[in-house]
Formats: sequence, C-alpha cells, structure tokens
Amino acid sequence: MSPERAYEELRRFQLETAYFESLGALAGWDQRTYIPRKGHAHRARQFAALARLLHQRRTDSRVGGWLEALEGSDLAAGGERPEAVNVREWRRDYERAVRVPAELAVALAEAKSEGESAWEAMREENNWTAFKPYLKRVLDLQREYAEAVGYETEPYDALLEDYEPGERAARLTGLFGELGAATRRLLDRILGSSVRPPTEVLHRDFPVATQREVVHEVTAALGYDLEGGRIDPTAHPFELSVGPGDVRITTRYYPDYFNAAFFGSVHEAGHAMYEQGLPDEHWGSPMGQAVSMGVHESQSRLWENVVGRSLGFWRYFYPRLQPRFAALADVPLEDFHRAVNAVQPSLIRVEADEVTYNLHILVRFELELALFRGELEVDDLPGAWNEKYRAYLGITPPDYKDGVMQDVHWASGLFGYFPSYTLGNLYAAQLFARAEAERGPFEPQWSRGSFAALLAWMRENIHHHGRRYPPRVLVERATGEPPRPDYLIRYLERKFGELYGL
Amino acid sequence: MSPERAYEELRRFQLETAYFESLGALAGWDQRTYIPRKGHAHRARQFAALARLLHQRRTDSRVGGWLEALEGSDLAAGGERPEAVNVREWRRDYERAVRVPAELAVALAEAKSEGESAWEAMREENNWTAFKPYLKRVLDLQREYAEAVGYETEPYDALLEDYEPGERAARLTGLFGELGAATRRLLDRILGSSVRPPTEVLHRDFPVATQREVVHEVTAALGYDLEGGRIDPTAHPFELSVGPGDVRITTRYYPDYFNAAFFGSVHEAGHAMYEQGLPDEHWGSPMGQAVSMGVHESQSRLWENVVGRSLGFWRYFYPRLQPRFAALADVPLEDFHRAVNAVQPSLIRVEADEVTYNLHILVRFELELALFRGELEVDDLPGAWNEKYRAYLGITPPDYKDGVMQDVHWASGLFGYFPSYTLGNLYAAQLFARAEAERGPFEPQWSRGSFAALLAWMRENIHHHGRRYPPRVLVERATGEPPRPDYLIRYLERKFGELYGL
Repeated sequence: MSPERAYEELRRFQLETAYFESLGALAGWDQRTYIPRKGHAHRARQFAALARLLHQRRTDSRVGGWLEALEGSDLAAGGERPEAVNVREWRRDYERAVRVPAELAVALAEAKSEGESAWEAMREENNWTAFKPYLKRVLDLQREYAEAVGYETEPYDALLEDYEPGERAARLTGLFGELGAATRRLLDRILGSSVRPPTEVLHRDFPVATQREVVHEVTAALGYDLEGGRIDPTAHPFELSVGPGDVRITTRYYPDYFNAAFFGSVHEAGHAMYEQGLPDEHWGSPMGQAVSMGVHESQSRLWENVVGRSLGFWRYFYPRLQPRFAALADVPLEDFHRAVNAVQPSLIRVEADEVTYNLHILVRFELELALFRGELEVDDLPGAWNEKYRAYLGITPPDYKDGVMQDVHWASGLFGYFPSYTLGNLYAAQLFARAEAERGPFEPQWSRGSFAALLAWMRENIHHHGRRYPPRVLVERATGEPPRPDYLIRYLERKFGELYGL
Repeated sequence: MSPERAYEELRRFQLETAYFESLGALAGWDQRTYIPRKGHAHRARQFAALARLLHQRRTDSRVGGWLEALEGSDLAAGGERPEAVNVREWRRDYERAVRVPAELAVALAEAKSEGESAWEAMREENNWTAFKPYLKRVLDLQREYAEAVGYETEPYDALLEDYEPGERAARLTGLFGELGAATRRLLDRILGSSVRPPTEVLHRDFPVATQREVVHEVTAALGYDLEGGRIDPTAHPFELSVGPGDVRITTRYYPDYFNAAFFGSVHEAGHAMYEQGLPDEHWGSPMGQAVSMGVHESQSRLWENVVGRSLGFWRYFYPRLQPRFAALADVPLEDFHRAVNAVQPSLIRVEADEVTYNLHILVRFELELALFRGELEVDDLPGAWNEKYRAYLGITPPDYKDGVMQDVHWASGLFGYFPSYTLGNLYAAQLFARAEAERGPFEPQWSRGSFAALLAWMRENIHHHGRRYPPRVLVERATGEPPRPDYLIRYLERKFGELYGL
C-alpha cells in the first residue's frame, strides 16, 4: 500500500473513531446536567458499550498496518507538517494502547468506576476504612498499568505521559520544589500583614437569575463564543467539547456566594476558548486536539486569575456588575477587588486562592510520587497527608472528608493528573509575560473592555498548534524558554505584594 | 454452533447495537433541545458516522449465520415465548435490511436530509417550484426502496410495513373510507348546530412559568414517571426514549395560547408512558420494543383526547388549573371544557380537533397511495391536494405553505407514515371501550384524580407485550375484535353529539 493511501485510510478511520468519541462526550455532558435520576444505570451501560467499541478501534491491527506503510515515508517526515504530526501522534497513541492487555483495561475501567461510586458514598460518611480497599485496588492496577505502558526512569512517568506528554517526575520535583519554597515565604509575609480583605461582601445575597445573566455576559466579553457553546448548571463544573461549533461549559450557582459561579464560569470558559481555538479543519486528528492537561489548565487559570482577578478587568466590569446586585451598592471597586483576591490557607483545594493553590497540589504530587516509588502505602496516606498540610499550609484536617478523601481523582485512578494544575499556573504566568511583552500592556486594554489581543496571541501561539509540539516545546517556542517557576513567582509576589502592602 | 449459543451471541450483538442506537437517540434529543446553533453541522456528521456503523451491524453476515443456526430449533418455535418472538423479529429486520443495496441506503439518507432542509427553507417562502425536485427525488428513491424490500400486492404495502407491520393498503382503504364518510356526516351536523364554544378563552394570557408547572403536574398525575423522564421546551415537540429510566418528552409554550403546551405534553406523555411500560428486562431486543407507530399513537391520542379532553378529567383538574391563571377567573368549567373540544375545519393538521383530524389524514393517505400506484405524479399534487381539502373539509388552501407543503413527512421520505395517526385514533377508541368494559366506568375515577386503572390495563394488554404480536393481532387479542371503525365513530358521535346538542 502506498503511504498516501495508508495515510488517507488511517485518517478516515481515526475520524470515524472521533465521531464515536464525541457521541460519548455528549452523553457525558448529559450525564452531568440533565439526565433523569433513573437514567444513570442505562447510561453506564451505554458507556461500557462505547468503551468496548473504542478499545477495539484504538488497538485495531489495521492501524498498525497503516502506520507500518507510513514508516520512513515523506508523509511521516518533516516533523511540523500536519501529516507528520498526525502520524507521529497516532503512532504514539496506538503503541500505548496495544501495550495494555485487554483484561487490565477492563479491570481498570471497573475499578475506577467502583472507586468513584465508593468515594461518592463514603466521603460523605467520612469512612476511610471502608473506602481504603477501593483505593488500594485502583492503585494496584495503576501500578500494573504503568509497568504495561512502560517508562524510562520510574513508573510515575508512565502516568504523567497520559496528561502531560514528555513530562518527567524528576523535573517536576525541581520545578515544584522551587515554587513551593517561594510560595511559603510569600504566604508567611501575607499572613504577617495587617491587611484584611473584606471577604464578607462575597457572601451576601446574589440572586441566581442575575448571576446567570452575568456569567453569560462576562464569558462572552472575554471571547467565549456562545453561539458555539452554552452554559448549564451542574454540581461539579466542567468544560466539554462535543466538536466544532459545540463547546460547552457548566457552572454552579449559590444564592449567597459570588465566587463559585463567576470565577468558575470564567475558568471553564478559558478551557472552552482553547477548544474553540483548535483548528477545526483538523478535528478528529492530533493536529486538532488539545496537547495536554497542563496547557489546558494554563488557559483556564489565565482567564480566571490573571485576567479575571486583575484590577484592570474589574475597572471595566465592576461598574457593570455593581448595579445588578443590591448587595454591592455600598462596596467600592477596590474593596471588591481585594475581596476576590483574599489569601487564606484552607483545607479545600478547590476553594484555594492563587497563592496557596499550588501548595495543595504539592501535597498531592509528593504523596502520589511516593506511592509510585514504593515509599508509601495507602495505609499511611492519612498520616502523611495531615503532616504535609501542617508543614505547607499550617493547618490540620479535622477529618478524612476534608483531608485525604477530599478529591475524587485518586478514587477514579487519576494518579499523575494533579501536577497539571500547577503546570497550568506556571505556563499561564510564563505565556502571559511573553504575550504582554509582545502585545501589551494588557490591563489598560482590559479596563476598556478589550480582551481580544490576549486571546489572539494565545490562538496563534498555543491553540492553533494542536498537538504539533509536546507541551514543554510548545511553551518554549512561544516564550523562548522552557517552563520555569520564576514567572509565576514574580507574578504572585508583585500582585500580592501590592494587595497586602508588603 | 448450538442454537443456544447462537441465540446468546445474537442477543449480545443486538444489545450492543441497541446501545449505539440509544446514543444516537440522545444526540437526537439534544439536537432538538439544547444544541448550540453552530453545532448542527458536526451533529450531522456524527449521525452519518453512527448510521454507517448501524447499517454495518444490521446487515452483518454473522446475524444471518446466527439466524440460520436457530432455524427450526426449539428456541425459535412456540411463537409467543420471548426467545421465539425475538428470533422471528430479528429475522424480519435482518431480511428487510439486507434487501436494500448499500448505494440505495446512502442515496436515500442523503435525499431525505436534503429534502428536510429544502422543506425547512422553501416552505417559509411558499416556493413549491424550488421544492418540487427534492420531493421528486425522495419519491423516486422510495419507489425504488419499495421494490427492493418487496411486497405481495402493491408497493405502498412495503412502506406501511416499516410503520405498521402487517398492515395493507387495501384494508386501510376500507377502514378509512368508512370512518371518513361517518366523520363527514358528523361534521355536517356539527356545522349546522347553533352551539359556538367560547374558544377565545384559550387565547388569553398564560404565563409560561406557570404553564411549565402545570404540564409537569398533569403528566405526573396521569402516570408519566418524571424521575425517569423530563420535559424540555422545543420547536416541534416529540417523545424520545434513551433507554430504561430515561424517557423524555418536549413541548412548546405560547404565552397567549393554552392548548399547545398542555395537550401537547399530555400527548407526548402518552407516548412516554408506553415506552416506560415496555419490559425493561427485554430492552435491546424486539420483546422490549414498541410494536408500531399506530399503537404508539393510540397511547398518545388516548391520553390527550379520550382522557385529557373529557369532562371527568376536567372536573378533577380544572379546580387545580383555574386559580393559577388570572385569565380563567371568569370561565366556568363547562365553558372551558367546550372550548378545548371545539370543532372547526381548518387548514392545518396539527391544529385539528378530534373530528376533523382524520379527514386531514385521509387526504394524505389517498394522495400517497395514488403516488405509489402510479396514478399521480408530484406535479399534480397541489391540485389534487386542494381538491380533496375542498371535498372533505370544505376549505381551500390559499397557498402551498399551508397546503401541500405543510408537513415535513414527505420531504423526509416518510411515505406510509400518515396512516399511523388515524390507526392510533381507531385503536385508542377500541382499546378504551374494552378497558372500560373490564375496569370502568373511568370518568368517575378521573374526576377523583385516579388514572391508574386505565394505565394498568394498557400496561397489561399493550405495553407489556413489546413486539410479541403484530399490531392487528395485539388489538384483536386485547379487545376480542380486529381493528374496526365503529368504536371511534361511536365515541365521536356520542361525545360531540352531547357537546353540540345534536
């Protein structure tokens, strides 16, 4: 078979697979938004049938045949061209898929699903003892999985590869260590300051119907195309891409808390703008896909924090927000801006501020790395967790529920995922610094309601490339340097130095 | 291969297919409710990929092999047992599927989709000339399709078989002819009466939020399980079954018209209660499927008209409805009941009352039968349409839009579907008469808010059987007689005789 024909057949085959994946994406959206209570059991069986189909297709030996026919051809050479990128990434995905024995794949899927359900039920009851066996089972299987897909240096790298291709535990240890130390120094200075942001203003009366209008308005203003998307209420907010022209986000409204729906929506809109910026003409092939969870998170954190919590943004948006909520009538812009940037060590990662957030991730990263290096077992987790919270954040969880059992990630097998959050923050700061050097300063633009220049830079330098470069290389090409902790550290020190008068 | 093993493998294969179909059902629901405007093109491509997969599976030669292994076995014998029913119906579906050449299937799918889009665009513009070629193309292909799947007596029967298995054009001509003649006599008497129902009360101010509460309340009261369903707004209402525990309906709200959302919801809830009454344990096999469009329609029309437009029902529900709408404060129960039962010949089928509805169907049935008997061509349709409207309903469409172009059915290839509506009305009256003889009278129960006895009878005699019997046989077993026009004629004459003082 000629390489041209092999490429064409492979492309069509993968495109067809992508349509089935995207039907699953839609079913996932529905499962977390509008599904009737009694529809869950059937939905799980639909997903299982789809998973069988997708596993078959991802490990179909014809894919191996097409890739062989492409080996060494002109189409596969010349690394940056779309065809070469696609062949390279299809090969990577195929090789990883076929290394996992079918029985292991099935066992993992079951264990993850059972783990999630167990977490859902037992977290509420603070029942670590009942939950532990599920976690052990998932961990054992994930260790097996790491061995099956393989690694150069250590098992944890095999997991990282699923979320941040090319990233390595050893490198993260350095990056995160430096960031963690700087963060703790900054946090100490903040806690020593006499400034007390008036956070009470965020817990007033915010009618949900008005919040709904506001989140539509703000996400649209930032650049989320709502004609190709929508915003629905849900319990655990997420962004979900069905396909070109259909990239949806969800959010959660509290009638007595401002931040959740507002910053949650801006965060998810950041993810959505990345998906909306991927090249549609490459949909269904790696060139049309997001490159990593870290890069994805860089886009959500950028819009949520760097933009959405800036003074420039609020100079524009607060005059539009304030008249809509009677609760804000007596709150000046500066107080509001301070309140949404309040730093306060807390137990819960998802409620953490920009400064302490990465310390929550550091705890998880160090623990899961130890689990995969064989230096820690599940039985030791609660103790190790509490010790690190004391050391990094100065607080001790009073229970399992808000301690070691607070996240669903481990229960559902997502070891190696947590670093994406901090990588996202690091990338965001570094990308932002470069974008601003090239097209800024941005804050004056934002205070006039103009957010297009920053989005355009991200479109060109990040979104547009799909999976063309591994995330590290993508960041390096966009900014001239590999990912470094300095930009985020400097950003945090400057921003919070000003806010807390340090 | 042993018949037992063949059955098990076939059953699993078909179940897997059903999961993919049900992902498509969900995508169809989304397409008509919440999809973003820009998501339609991608959705069409998702459907095309799914259609390719489903066509492959429906014509998979392994199905033929399994059926062969089952031929003459004990499992396939003894007609009423679930296994025998499934084998019989799987064979029927398979044989029909493989008779359609792949090229014809593809051409039909394209022509239908183009036909629908053309109708959508050109109906608004009243542009028959531009629409005609699309309709001709669909008709030509449907004629080819009828030849491909085959028939005993005439091509139209091949189409009927898709919606009402076992039904024949010749028999419908008799049934519908008798019904039509009796209906026209009744209509003449009604039009000669001096009674004028106060329909104006239905066009007052009905706030949508309240309507929404009301349709949830009434459908739940009738027996629609909303924990296994939901009601969403849409442009063209429909019922859609995703699977066990997930049977959804949609409706359309007008702030200045009561009937659309209320009776539309009750109608769709009738469909949904049928789906919710199918045996869950047989989901994914013929024993778990609705048997025909006519039987489906019998359930929706039963709840919409026989129940929902009865005086007994309104004795119960009007005291609950009236206080919710200021517009009804001065409207007594009897006036309201007369208004929702007003008879008035009109141009539009979907707005027709119980008396004239079947005349609209008769027009379509006679025209499409003539098209498939070669007695009529597309060019002659508008003239023939107008002539029949004049003869049966005494009115002449002023344009194509509300005349020959009013329904999407023909544009999307649904020739042979229209009879289902009138069959539904006939079945509903006949089933109801028998149910009432066995468990009634019902109206006194309804006026106390108790609708369970009628639903229970339908569950036992209709829903529960899935595709066990062809629709005619199902009706005959349930009522002791094959479908006859008398019950519907008697029901209409008695009900409207009283309402119009005839």
